[in-house]
Amino acid sequence: MNPINHLVQIVLVETSHPGNIGSVARAMKNMGLSKLALVNPKKFPHNEAVALSGNAKDILDNAEVFTSIDEVVKNSKVIYATSARERTIDWPTISVRDAAQEINQLISKEIEVSILFGREDRGLTNDELQLANKHLIIPAHPEYPVLNIAMSTQVVCYELYQASKNNAVGDWKDFPEYTSEELNNLIDHFNETVKNLDLIDPDNPKQIMTRMERMFRRLYPDQMEGNFLRGFLKAVNKKIK
Amino acid sequence: MNPINHLVQIVLVETSHPGNIGSVARAMKNMGLSKLALVNPKKFPHNEAVALSGNAKDILDNAEVFTSIDEVVKNSKVIYATSARERTIDWPTISVRDAAQEINQLISKEIEVSILFGREDRGLTNDELQLANKHLIIPAHPEYPVLNIAMSTQVVCYELYQASKNNAVGDWKDFPEYTSEELNNLIDHFNETVKNLDLIDPDNPKQIMTRMERMFRRLYPDQMEGNFLRGFLKAVNKKIK
Repeated sequence: MNPINHLVQIVLVETSHPGNIGSVARAMKNMGLSKLALVNPKKFPHNEAVALSGNAKDILDNAEVFTSIDEVVKNSKVIYATSARERTIDWPTISVRDAAQEINQLISKEIEVSILFGREDRGLTNDELQLANKHLIIPAHPEYPVLNIAMSTQVVCYELYQASKNNAVGDWKDFPEYTSEELNNLIDHFNETVKNLDLIDPDNPKQIMTRMERMFRRLYPDQMEGNFLRGFLKAVNKKIK
Repeated sequence: MNPINHLVQIVLVETSHPGNIGSVARAMKNMGLSKLALVNPKKFPHNEAVALSGNAKDILDNAEVFTSIDEVVKNSKVIYATSARERTIDWPTISVRDAAQEINQLISKEIEVSILFGREDRGLTNDELQLANKHLIIPAHPEYPVLNIAMSTQVVCYELYQASKNNAVGDWKDFPEYTSEELNNLIDHFNETVKNLDLIDPDNPKQIMTRMERMFRRLYPDQMEGNFLRGFLKAVNKKIK
């Protein structure tokens, strides 16, 4: 069983509709999160919250209620604030997918993280946004980029779970990734071999080799793969000479 | 402005709560989708649907209502059915993230796609699941993996939008992807060449070659890359013989 994530705290600031709090609790539990904090919720506890929480009533029961946002984040080393793009003041900004990777790294070092979600109608204030280390963006269609708060939480929790799974499942990467220097050497070795095999089209050599370089950079080979390819190229060059 | 996606049809089957239909409409518009089909909705049109749709009332206004699921999917070449893992009968299954990549390829060829979402309480029937080419899974925590229907739609639409954005930015893929047959041929050719070069460790040949196969499958080469690698391997084998 995948572990439950107790290190990421979902913080809902002045939520108006208790149903949204229930939906958030369900979204969290669906994705293996447990820690919900509420700053001045308009109505809580409330039967609508329970109704929409499904089998996640335990998340609601354990939710902590705070009267100030400073108090709620005091144990978090890193704070993310969710924000619709157009409201974002000039601040370090990260997509939810990249943030999930980053958070996954942080919690692997037992670092606590808070993610703030604002009011249904007007999100977080500028003061609240400035509490955050980074602003977290859910890329959405410019015609209507504002997600419902529970939906935003679902997407964030979903990405967190996928990132944690990649790590857990990702025992498939049994070797560390090639460093950029090793990758450069592999690409050079490949280019040299291509030249030795007289494979370069004299009319258009650069485009093809640029494309092949892009392919190798996209691949992110690990040590085993990269070293095997180096051995392969070495053997090929022996046959040529 | 990113284009609106008219080729992916979201199909809600016998939805009980009109609020969910409204939330789905909003989730769709947030992610640039437009085509909503409803099979025997319990209550539609309904003011709760409008209330939860936010600025996506146009999606509700344009939603088509059907009395049979066969009718709704008749123009779709590929049908995905969302399904909670434990209910899934033995059927080709794909994660939402991989499905989004796949769907993105299909719609780039103007192929219409339907994604089916089942009833709030019991999902899709086995007969409905068997209509689908593939079952689409949202990876979730095993303790409580069943997402609310609107949340599921949000995650699916979110992944579709991210995949379409990758393509839009990624005009870098200037050639179509290798088909699975072409990829298999490339891998066979590589394996044969490795054998001809006497590179296989006799103590543990399979693990390394399985890993190299995994590397190629991860790469998703395009036609240009794949064909250049085939030409490279051909030239290498000429030198060996």
